[in-house]
Amino acid sequence: MIKSMNRRGFASDNNAGVSNEVLQKMMEVNIGHTIGYGDDNYTRLAVDVLKTNFGDQAIPFLVFTGTAANVLGITASAKAFNSVICADTAHIHVDECGAPERFSGCKLVPIKTPNGKLTPELIKPYLYGFDFEHHSQPGIISITEPTELGTLYTVEEIKQLSQLAHKFNMFLHIDGARLANAAVALNCSFREMTYDAGVDVLSFGGTKNGLMFAESVIFFNETLAANFKYIRKQGMQLTSKMRFIAAQFIAYFENDLWRKNAMHSNAMARKLYEAVIKIPEVTVTQEVQANAVFAIIPESVTHELKKEFFFYDWDENIGEVRWMTSFDTTEDDIDRFVDKLKEAIGC
Amino acid sequence: MIKSMNRRGFASDNNAGVSNEVLQKMMEVNIGHTIGYGDDNYTRLAVDVLKTNFGDQAIPFLVFTGTAANVLGITASAKAFNSVICADTAHIHVDECGAPERFSGCKLVPIKTPNGKLTPELIKPYLYGFDFEHHSQPGIISITEPTELGTLYTVEEIKQLSQLAHKFNMFLHIDGARLANAAVALNCSFREMTYDAGVDVLSFGGTKNGLMFAESVIFFNETLAANFKYIRKQGMQLTSKMRFIAAQFIAYFENDLWRKNAMHSNAMARKLYEAVIKIPEVTVTQEVQANAVFAIIPESVTHELKKEFFFYDWDENIGEVRWMTSFDTTEDDIDRFVDKLKEAIGC
Amino acid sequence: MIKSMNRRGFASDNNAGVSNEVLQKMMEVNIGHTIGYGDDNYTRLAVDVLKTNFGDQAIPFLVFTGTAANVLGITASAKAFNSVICADTAHIHVDECGAPERFSGCKLVPIKTPNGKLTPELIKPYLYGFDFEHHSQPGIISITEPTELGTLYTVEEIKQLSQLAHKFNMFLHIDGARLANAAVALNCSFREMTYDAGVDVLSFGGTKNGLMFAESVIFFNETLAANFKYIRKQGMQLTSKMRFIAAQFIAYFENDLWRKNAMHSNAMARKLYEAVIKIPEVTVTQEVQANAVFAIIPESVTHELKKEFFFYDWDENIGEVRWMTSFDTTEDDIDRFVDKLKEAIGC
Amino acid sequence: MIKSMNRRGFASDNNAGVSNEVLQKMMEVNIGHTIGYGDDNYTRLAVDVLKTNFGDQAIPFLVFTGTAANVLGITASAKAFNSVICADTAHIHVDECGAPERFSGCKLVPIKTPNGKLTPELIKPYLYGFDFEHHSQPGIISITEPTELGTLYTVEEIKQLSQLAHKFNMFLHIDGARLANAAVALNCSFREMTYDAGVDVLSFGGTKNGLMFAESVIFFNETLAANFKYIRKQGMQLTSKMRFIAAQFIAYFENDLWRKNAMHSNAMARKLYEAVIKIPEVTVTQEVQANAVFAIIPESVTHELKKEFFFYDWDENIGEVRWMTSFDTTEDDIDRFVDKLKEAIGC
Repeated sequence: MIKSMNRRGFASDNNAGVSNEVLQKMMEVNIGHTIGYGDDNYTRLAVDVLKTNFGDQAIPFLVFTGTAANVLGITASAKAFNSVICADTAHIHVDECGAPERFSGCKLVPIKTPNGKLTPELIKPYLYGFDFEHHSQPGIISITEPTELGTLYTVEEIKQLSQLAHKFNMFLHIDGARLANAAVALNCSFREMTYDAGVDVLSFGGTKNGLMFAESVIFFNETLAANFKYIRKQGMQLTSKMRFIAAQFIAYFENDLWRKNAMHSNAMARKLYEAVIKIPEVTVTQEVQANAVFAIIPESVTHELKKEFFFYDWDENIGEVRWMTSFDTTEDDIDRFVDKLKEAIGC
Repeated sequence: MIKSMNRRGFASDNNAGVSNEVLQKMMEVNIGHTIGYGDDNYTRLAVDVLKTNFGDQAIPFLVFTGTAANVLGITASAKAFNSVICADTAHIHVDECGAPERFSGCKLVPIKTPNGKLTPELIKPYLYGFDFEHHSQPGIISITEPTELGTLYTVEEIKQLSQLAHKFNMFLHIDGARLANAAVALNCSFREMTYDAGVDVLSFGGTKNGLMFAESVIFFNETLAANFKYIRKQGMQLTSKMRFIAAQFIAYFENDLWRKNAMHSNAMARKLYEAVIKIPEVTVTQEVQANAVFAIIPESVTHELKKEFFFYDWDENIGEVRWMTSFDTTEDDIDRFVDKLKEAIGC
Repeated sequence: MIKSMNRRGFASDNNAGVSNEVLQKMMEVNIGHTIGYGDDNYTRLAVDVLKTNFGDQAIPFLVFTGTAANVLGITASAKAFNSVICADTAHIHVDECGAPERFSGCKLVPIKTPNGKLTPELIKPYLYGFDFEHHSQPGIISITEPTELGTLYTVEEIKQLSQLAHKFNMFLHIDGARLANAAVALNCSFREMTYDAGVDVLSFGGTKNGLMFAESVIFFNETLAANFKYIRKQGMQLTSKMRFIAAQFIAYFENDLWRKNAMHSNAMARKLYEAVIKIPEVTVTQEVQANAVFAIIPESVTHELKKEFFFYDWDENIGEVRWMTSFDTTEDDIDRFVDKLKEAIGC
Repeated sequence: MIKSMNRRGFASDNNAGVSNEVLQKMMEVNIGHTIGYGDDNYTRLAVDVLKTNFGDQAIPFLVFTGTAANVLGITASAKAFNSVICADTAHIHVDECGAPERFSGCKLVPIKTPNGKLTPELIKPYLYGFDFEHHSQPGIISITEPTELGTLYTVEEIKQLSQLAHKFNMFLHIDGARLANAAVALNCSFREMTYDAGVDVLSFGGTKNGLMFAESVIFFNETLAANFKYIRKQGMQLTSKMRFIAAQFIAYFENDLWRKNAMHSNAMARKLYEAVIKIPEVTVTQEVQANAVFAIIPESVTHELKKEFFFYDWDENIGEVRWMTSFDTTEDDIDRFVDKLKEAIGC
């Protein structure tokens, strides 16, 4: 039917397909009728599984996309006159076409960072104007874990940010589109890096780690969750055949698929990093802590490499590129990529 | 894993699962990497297939849910100060938690109808106040085909409504969550009942007829489509792994799956209708033209029936219930249901 | 400068100008500098005066327009997924260009009434679907006092509606654009018809009774008021020179100007009513309880009358017109109008 | 009634009252009835006067507040998926509580500047991502003239920005809350600095220069203006007694009141600047081009001065304060202020 080869590249972990176990589970739940819109046993099981992993206080809701998880989580946790403080590289700020502003009404306050990570010191200058009606009221600190630059917050750093947030009656939101990659890198449980660290609301992604379209908004604060079912419906994210999102999360946690996938993609990034770090013409620009490698390479090399492997420029002005690995990246992919890279460089 | 039986009932066609051909195709496209967010060959093929069926002028976009298709199609076709005229039984009015108002800003103007169908005569009294800034400007006529009451607009009736709309510089929107059921009932092509009939924007559903979550907003007017990609993104409906929605539409049109499924569910409704119409204690309240049967039955009978078959009350005040058939309803399901019904009535 | 005569008519009480006392007070406060945005002594005095009249629990905020008072009061009292139940003649439904939907996100649920008045019996059929996420959650009952048809709720009727609202965890909102006219007609205090009657949030108008542009949102519920200052600012209704709105309210309550104005306009409507009721060709269609007279008269008479007096058609299909009196209507205006009416009829 | 003295200070030009000519005109138009909502001869005259000053192509609409003028002008000129590029000191970004985001849905993109002024060089790095649906589409460049820091764009600089905007199919918006101060400083006509310079949409303020509450959204582009009357109504800014806003603009242009007021307040700022520049302990931080003086002074001096004169801190971290002059600032005010300043410094 479609003749073109689907060559694996390094463009994004969402260019990958779906783990077989996931499709298998989606077929398994395709039996007879279930009540629509999440009032079914599969969804109940998925919710239970999420609670097992995030703690009993976790209140999970399933949605389709990461943008939706972020936007609706923020909407539930903020008033329209609040602002959301985030890194200026945050997905919510640069990659969602203004969806957070449009749906929540909030102002986004982007902060420049060296590595995609907010710190209390970076944030504090923006914590002013409380009670002053001319000023968008700081309401949420939103971080991405791992960041869009492939770097990691430690659990301790997350705690510091949640404490800062709570001190100012604000909430801490994590965009965890790749949270599994962070969990395996930090070698901690999901609960330890979220509930135990004081996180209030989480966008927990699966799509970038081998699911098809399955994301979850997880609240650790009952009040924020109270009206979320209406917000999800108004946000056009309530699916009738919910069992097919539920099935993905069920598969994700069976036999630790999430861990297997995330460990693999992290390992592939590490392997790539270790290979390219030896090449003088390649300057790695960010710590490689999850499944992304950022590097500056000569423009001609980028050009040559792209003939065979798809990946994105990050900052064209300085020749910086981004290479993402994913659950299905093979050792051979890395070897061939590095060979090609060396060849293009001429070493 | 999940022990409960998934018994087929008559609650809704979205309580059914997914056609095997659809899951099969989703597995087929699960090869290697494709560019995300719809810039892939599977999506291009799905779009081509939709254009083949709706006409070259059709401009289709894929989304997840029917609510999203409706809300985003309306948003693209209206300004926030417009009103949307619809039947007071319309899904956009009674089943979407105000999502159209929230996202588009528009006012919904519900009109009472005997059978879920708008007519020029019913609409005309609401076509006033043009150019008067105190009045929400009538912008869209929205109809559901087939209606939420299982009734059908003829192609000629659709034409009359599009002519009325265009006469007042308004647009005609169809909520076609079950458009396949209408097409087979009317024995016409999708194009004949949409583009040829003057429709401007269509929510074309697949989920209720054997797909998993696959809906499409189809514009027949280039201007309305111009900015839709941004609206879809802001509407949180742009999926990275688009090929898995595309695959569903590809399967839907291969070997006329859509027709096979829709004809079957219509036939099952017909069979049910023909059986119950003979029972004096059952009063069928709407014409059975697609895959729904509405009937008034004694309360005790409803109670007895529900022990075995799941279905919804429609109007509790008068004892009216709704029975939906779906692509996977079997003749045996109908026979058993009717037997049980007779037993409960005592005839 | 402007040559055209400003002839008094019966179009609307907002076609009138401003009471002299009001302009006088606006001049009086025009001394030196005051802190902007309401943090000044004039505004504090206006707030105190409002609290004196509405009760200590009243929490008043000043805004410019009645639409703003309604929209922002509703926004503060509802979530975007709520619905607002109102008469289908309500100003918020028919005369605000969908502003309530756009700003609050809420759905408006219009109910047909014989006389512009909601009753528990009319409302109850709409109080369903609580906790069901597909359904806009009933959140507010909004009534207009006096109604757009010139009729009145008694204090007892308001109480019944607030009890109904509270029973369902909803709020009662009054659009009191002409509340002064109601208060004098009912011969009760503002507090008796609002706080004492269980009202949660009130749009208290002055503009239609001799002020220039001065309206107030008054909360009787601290929780609803808590964030209102931000909502007013985001709603673009926070004026820097607040003292000039404050001055209007100060004047309004000095020497009972509000009462004097409202009693006069009510009396003029009564005089008009008593004159026209004797003319057989005139059918008065609504009870005359405040400052409006609705009547059916022959089309040719309307045509003739409008040559001299400006007023609006209400329902052209049946020849119904609306005559509003205002604080500056004179006895002579009524006499001349009635003479002209009789002349046009030929009696 | 109110005992406190209304001492003139240097907090803001909107802490001043209203020019007598303005109140006088408001009294003058207070005769009889006029049709509401702007369909009256006073409003027509005000519109004509504005067109006379801004050019025949100008399409003016009257509103109450500067925030409303900005927000509604932006809403009319952008789609919800657009971004608005502005200085990070812009009123729309820092002083409107997120109203632009909430009402328009747009993202604001703040740019750091040395003096409140955007330049093509500062803007260009942000002009990317066109046609890329993940990216808020750059739609508007918004500048403030004079800026919030009291500096001025030359007409030539405005032209360069409009050319840049138009090259990218964007629009240039001016927040002209103090445009009169700019016009007299630049010694040019309103038309020369707006329509002739390629401006698309203007917030033209009067409130900060002696009016009470009178602002205008002026379009120089017919398409943008086409639906504005609905946007103004939905934006809750359409007043029934429009003649009282109109009167203010009529007075503003009679006998060049706008010019007289603006020249005076600029002259007072100049006088203040010339006095303080001689004091070594005072560091003026921005060019004084309109009616604001920004300076760094010792904290103890600020403290001492504030006992007698009200003004605002600008940047507490560095001891920077802002002194605004206004139409009613007297030479004596300046003298007394400078004396006090010197006394506090001890020179």
